[in-house]
Amino acid sequence: MPKTELFNREEILHKCADLFHRKGYNATSMQDLVDTTNLNRSSLYNSFGNKRGIYVESLKFYKDKSSQSVQSFLLDSKTPLSALESIFNYAINSGKNGCLLSNCATEMANMDEGIKRFLEHNGDQMEELFENIVTKGQLNGNFNYKRTAKEYATYLFSALQGIRVTSMITDNKSKLDSLVKTTLSILY
Amino acid sequence: MPKTELFNREEILHKCADLFHRKGYNATSMQDLVDTTNLNRSSLYNSFGNKRGIYVESLKFYKDKSSQSVQSFLLDSKTPLSALESIFNYAINSGKNGCLLSNCATEMANMDEGIKRFLEHNGDQMEELFENIVTKGQLNGNFNYKRTAKEYATYLFSALQGIRVTSMITDNKSKLDSLVKTTLSILY
Repeated sequence: MPKTELFNREEILHKCADLFHRKGYNATSMQDLVDTTNLNRSSLYNSFGNKRGIYVESLKFYKDKSSQSVQSFLLDSKTPLSALESIFNYAINSGKNGCLLSNCATEMANMDEGIKRFLEHNGDQMEELFENIVTKGQLNGNFNYKRTAKEYATYLFSALQGIRVTSMITDNKSKLDSLVKTTLSILY
Repeated sequence: MPKTELFNREEILHKCADLFHRKGYNATSMQDLVDTTNLNRSSLYNSFGNKRGIYVESLKFYKDKSSQSVQSFLLDSKTPLSALESIFNYAINSGKNGCLLSNCATEMANMDEGIKRFLEHNGDQMEELFENIVTKGQLNGNFNYKRTAKEYATYLFSALQGIRVTSMITDNKSKLDSLVKTTLSILY
């Protein structure tokens, strides 16, 4: 059983998630993690097992933080469309590192079945959230019924990932703004 | 100046591109490249400079092969919609490794300006191709004019990347089929 941790776990995971977000899994060494956290190797191994353990906990940390952001957008939005606009605009304005979970998918999903399942589960949760938003928009007459709310939800999650990739290869802000508008215009 | 190469460059790049496609850049070692090509290190260094050199040539090789596939879809398709369907269906049926260029974007674009420019240039070319297809569909009355052909082209390229990421985290074939249908339905 691990000894009592003498550090702030939240703070440590924040630093590790930032590092993995910037460099990816394979380019990040244990020494990088030691340097970024100012913890020694044995503390890290005691608490997380190995590099993959730190990575998986960092993914969960990032996912929880992202969910909190999304929830705050929902609370602040007056309409289903403006909720979606907030989520998608956030995606194109979060810097050049893209989304840690999309980056993880392309780097790891084909090599690590456990991580793939984690990502699929995260996708299911995001789709459930999108389905609720689209259903509201369909019921209040803002959105069309050409596709079911579930079909639109799958579409929105996939499109969001595409937009994160696109925003990593171009700095053309007006192009990204227009891309978000086009993507959401399918709904109305 | 490099000595005359005593190997089939096309065949070697095919093997290297397959390896990078499966493992990514950072997880692939020079030893992996030696093992997969059956060439010694000095031959590889003479011809490509370093690991990044092999990677960049592999990206170009993959891009050219992908362009050839896309061109053959265009020749075989009777309508703009069926051309797009072929391209998108190919994307969800090409295996669990996703797209080498999308994977490259999420792993490398934020760390390597030269590779980022290569990917952006590739994106521009794909968008040009999509713009031509959409323009034809708009002129023949199959596609709507709610957005310009250029806007739809940006959307299609980004959506295609999203679909490649999505197809890495789920094996649900009917969900992916439905995703392609929804994505293209914006056009008609």
